[in-house]
Amino acid sequence: MPATDATTTLADLKSRIAAFARERDWEQFHAPKNLSMALAAEAAELMEHFLWSTPEQSQAFVRDPAKRGKIEEEIADVVIYALEFANVTGIDLAAAIEAKMVANARKYPVEKARGRAEKYDEL
Amino acid sequence: MPATDATTTLADLKSRIAAFARERDWEQFHAPKNLSMALAAEAAELMEHFLWSTPEQSQAFVRDPAKRGKIEEEIADVVIYALEFANVTGIDLAAAIEAKMVANARKYPVEKARGRAEKYDEL
Amino acid sequence: MPATDATTTLADLKSRIAAFARERDWEQFHAPKNLSMALAAEAAELMEHFLWSTPEQSQAFVRDPAKRGKIEEEIADVVIYALEFANVTGIDLAAAIEAKMVANARKYPVEKARGRAEKYDEL
Amino acid sequence: MPATDATTTLADLKSRIAAFARERDWEQFHAPKNLSMALAAEAAELMEHFLWSTPEQSQAFVRDPAKRGKIEEEIADVVIYALEFANVTGIDLAAAIEAKMVANARKYPVEKARGRAEKYDEL
Repeated sequence: MPATDATTTLADLKSRIAAFARERDWEQFHAPKNLSMALAAEAAELMEHFLWSTPEQSQAFVRDPAKRGKIEEEIADVVIYALEFANVTGIDLAAAIEAKMVANARKYPVEKARGRAEKYDEL
Repeated sequence: MPATDATTTLADLKSRIAAFARERDWEQFHAPKNLSMALAAEAAELMEHFLWSTPEQSQAFVRDPAKRGKIEEEIADVVIYALEFANVTGIDLAAAIEAKMVANARKYPVEKARGRAEKYDEL
Repeated sequence: MPATDATTTLADLKSRIAAFARERDWEQFHAPKNLSMALAAEAAELMEHFLWSTPEQSQAFVRDPAKRGKIEEEIADVVIYALEFANVTGIDLAAAIEAKMVANARKYPVEKARGRAEKYDEL
Repeated sequence: MPATDATTTLADLKSRIAAFARERDWEQFHAPKNLSMALAAEAAELMEHFLWSTPEQSQAFVRDPAKRGKIEEEIADVVIYALEFANVTGIDLAAAIEAKMVANARKYPVEKARGRAEKYDEL
C-alpha cells in the first residue's frame, strides 16, 4: 500500500529518515546548525522555480506536468530536513505545531485578520 | 489528548492549517510563489540561531531551556508553511517523500556513502 | 563629504568592514561557512518585507517612507556580509563580477534573451 | 586595465548591471519582490558549498582551486542582485552601509562586544 498523507504519521516519516542517516553513518554531519543550513538551502531551491513569475502565474506553473515532478522533489527535500532536524533535537513536531497554531490564533483573531496580509503588530 | 508525532498524520495537520487560512480569507495570499518565500524566510529565521556557534556547540544550544522554546516555534513555522504549500498545490507529501527517499537511496548507496559528506556526483 | 556610490570603491568598504570586525576581535567567528549563513539570513530578512505583496505592489512599497528606512538597513546588511565574505576569502569582487557578467552575456545573448525570463538552457 | 576592488566604485558596477538588464528588456521582471527572492536564492547557493564542513574546514575549502572558481561565481551573483536591487529602488548603497555601520558601532561598542558573538540585546 503506497504511503499517503492520510495514513502516514510524522513519527513514521521521522523513523524512516533517521534510519536512512544511521545506515550511512551520517549522524556525525547532522548537527542542528548544519541541518538548519540544509533546510534553508532546500527551501531556496524550491523558491527558485518562482523567481520571475507573478503569484498568479505560479498557480499554473505548479500544475505544469513538466515542472511538477521537480517541485514535488524540492518540497520533499525541505520536509525531510525539517523532520531530521526534529529527530536530532528531540522535538515533537505535532506538539510544536499545535502550540504555534494556538499562539497564531491569538495573534491573528479572525475578526481582525480577515482578508489582511499585515503582520499582527500592524493590524 | 495532546497531539503527538506518533498519533498525528500529515493529513490531520494539513486540514488544521487549511482551515486556519480559510477562516481568515488568506487563501488569496497563498500563491505557491508567496508560500515558497515565506517558507524560505522561516527556514532562515531558524538558521539565525546558529550563525556563530560551531556544529558541536549547536547540539548544546538546542537543549538550553532559554533557547529551546524559540527553536520549536521556528521549526513549527517552517513545517506549517511546507504543509500549506502542499495544500495549495495538491501535493501528497508522504508520497513525494517516499519517492525522494527511494531516489536518494539509489544516489547514495550505503556502501559508497557511508561516513562521507560529498555530493553523490563526487562519491 | 558623505559616502556615495559615485565616490566609494569596493576596497573602501572592504577596509571599513574589516576594521570593524578586527576592533571587536570578531575574526574568529567569521569563517566562510558562518558568513555565508549570515548573508543568507540577511537576504531572507530583506525578502520578508515582500512576502504577500505582488511584484507590482512591491514597487510602491519600497517608496513608502515608513518602510524605506528598514529596507535600506536590510540591503546594507546583505552587502556588508558579502564584502566581509570577500575579505576573509581574499576574493576581488569587482574582478569576480566582471568575469560573471562576461559569462552571463554569453549565456544570455541579447537577441535570444530579450524580454524572456527563462533560464539559459530553456531559451 | 582589469577591474579591481581598488579602482571600481559601486556606481561603476551599478551602471554595468543596469545596462545588462536594459539591453535584454529585463526591467519588467526586476520588481523589488523578485530581486529579493533572486538575491536570497543566490545567497543560499553560496551557502550550499559549506553545509557539512566545520567552520574551520570552510577556511581551507575556499582555497581549494577546484572549488574557488565556483565560490567566486556565487558571491558575484549575490552582489550583482544586491546592486540591481539598489538600482531599481534608487538606494545609494554606500550611504546605506555607512549609516548601518554607525548604528552597528553604537549597538556593539568595542569594550562590550570584544570577542563575543551574542546579539547586542544579550551583551
